[in-house]
Amino acid sequence: MSDYPFLKACRGEATEFTPVWLMRQAGRYLPQYMAVRSKCTFLELCKTPELAAEVTIQPIDYLGADAAILFSDILTPVEPMGLKLDFVPGPVFESPVRSMADVDALRIPDPEEGVPYVMETLRILRRAFEGRVPLIGFGGAPFTLACYMVEGKGSKDFAHIKKMMYAAPDVYTALMDKITEMDRLYLNAQVKAGAQAIQIFDTWGGIVSPTDYEKFVLPYTKKLIDGLDRSVPVIHFVKGAGTMLDLVNRAGSDVVGLDWHVNLGKARDILGPKIGVQGNLDPTVLYAPHAHIEREVKRILDENAGRPGHIFNLGHGILPNVPPENAKFMVECVHRLSGR
Amino acid sequence: MSDYPFLKACRGEATEFTPVWLMRQAGRYLPQYMAVRSKCTFLELCKTPELAAEVTIQPIDYLGADAAILFSDILTPVEPMGLKLDFVPGPVFESPVRSMADVDALRIPDPEEGVPYVMETLRILRRAFEGRVPLIGFGGAPFTLACYMVEGKGSKDFAHIKKMMYAAPDVYTALMDKITEMDRLYLNAQVKAGAQAIQIFDTWGGIVSPTDYEKFVLPYTKKLIDGLDRSVPVIHFVKGAGTMLDLVNRAGSDVVGLDWHVNLGKARDILGPKIGVQGNLDPTVLYAPHAHIEREVKRILDENAGRPGHIFNLGHGILPNVPPENAKFMVECVHRLSGR
Repeated sequence: MSDYPFLKACRGEATEFTPVWLMRQAGRYLPQYMAVRSKCTFLELCKTPELAAEVTIQPIDYLGADAAILFSDILTPVEPMGLKLDFVPGPVFESPVRSMADVDALRIPDPEEGVPYVMETLRILRRAFEGRVPLIGFGGAPFTLACYMVEGKGSKDFAHIKKMMYAAPDVYTALMDKITEMDRLYLNAQVKAGAQAIQIFDTWGGIVSPTDYEKFVLPYTKKLIDGLDRSVPVIHFVKGAGTMLDLVNRAGSDVVGLDWHVNLGKARDILGPKIGVQGNLDPTVLYAPHAHIEREVKRILDENAGRPGHIFNLGHGILPNVPPENAKFMVECVHRLSGR
Repeated sequence: MSDYPFLKACRGEATEFTPVWLMRQAGRYLPQYMAVRSKCTFLELCKTPELAAEVTIQPIDYLGADAAILFSDILTPVEPMGLKLDFVPGPVFESPVRSMADVDALRIPDPEEGVPYVMETLRILRRAFEGRVPLIGFGGAPFTLACYMVEGKGSKDFAHIKKMMYAAPDVYTALMDKITEMDRLYLNAQVKAGAQAIQIFDTWGGIVSPTDYEKFVLPYTKKLIDGLDRSVPVIHFVKGAGTMLDLVNRAGSDVVGLDWHVNLGKARDILGPKIGVQGNLDPTVLYAPHAHIEREVKRILDENAGRPGHIFNLGHGILPNVPPENAKFMVECVHRLSGR
């Protein structure tokens, strides 16, 4: 198992070729996924282990990706904390967290009781993938989960969470402490259920200034990572954090995920030789003609310049209208151009 | 006139205190503005010189800002190119530009004929402000205007413009050439009508990778700036460009605008001592208690460390629900803490 190229790259070891997977590779661009999804809601899909496993396996069969990632949503474990979740189609919490009383009411459930379907999905997948590809578990970073819980939905300005940070730091701290502990239990339970790597998604970590990131975001991510079962590698992806990779690095992951706003080579120079990187193709490049896709894959491989510890990926999730054959072609390019 | 602290700072000269203004200072957060706005549509306000001038003056009276900026919209000059514009409330072009035929159909009107109301507003304002504050004119960067013209409205993924860049570079180039020439005429006409500085807003310049910025965005902004009447200073603001300030700098402006994702001091180190900076308070900080606002103003002034050529501003436009007294307090803090 530890010879999987993906896991070797996570550990910074040399690999025969550059392993590749795509964030949101089990998603709407794939007709096979849509066929399953047409028969149930998004939440039902997350909560039905056989179906969640099926859509996790599809892109491995179709794309030939070098790692599989659990199909779920970062907000799945928040619902059993006591917040009713819906997708319309974006996530909505009908009663957002705004006060200390709201925070006090949040529970920290045992993951096997709160989200048994996630753990069962992981167990099914681990058996299905044994000897074929490694299985990545994942969770949202505490700050990103807090953004959704406080805003109640996606936001442009994130006014509510920032007001809480600035004007009610005691409420903010209590909330973040509680989320961080939930997250720690959740991710460690995923490892126990079979996850062979953990990716932490901090989708909104880049909305704050570097000063605020250091004060309000980093301490909780660092505490989370410090509390994880480190028998598996941890990948930490903060979207929009290209100007503060030094701070992101201090959270202590094995691999740092990069969006497409940074030059991968320069990012590696900042992070240092011991830290792996994952990324960083602009997802819209998959709309382009094959020649352009190949050129961009080559550019990123060239920026890495053969350094061990590179996992190829998109800089964010694959977009819903991408032609599937373009995603498959990208995977082929990565393999071919990196020596497979 | 050239003794205005704002203009001295634009030229990199020492000032007795740090000049400050707020992007979108004539805006919805201000009850005086809403009183005017309640009697007409947004486009009517842009197209009625007396009203546009009135709302431009309001924040100077109320906030005590050190510069005024023309009230208009970056898309105002695009309409007379032949694209019907509406605000619902975001901007919408009912017939987006997608083909070479669409590009060929675009006109490049004389600004005095295409947007006479903008030029008249500038003339009114210049007379009204003489001896009091300098007047900033502005326009969208070619790429940002192209984003709206091709997408037809705001976008999350900017799939249409990126598809055009990657798959139809001839159409993209023809469009960008035409926009750049329109922009050049438009901004030079603003200077002739009384603008004492020009700000170029590249709201979407940060959505592309540094590689794509260098290839698809920078050449047009540079060509625009090279073609401007440089008897007035040029401020170049690219949102989300903190990872590529070296490239932004190559466009050749006098001042680079900074969003809140960068440390202002580090940005100055990258840009070099000859380039001024404008920014960079997170707009949401204006939701915070006064003590926090003051702390953040001080932090940014400290990051600048007394270097000449700093214009204080927000890192993006002021948000609609900010208490006006918080904006006024911020201006007072900048003045008091910088020695006025």
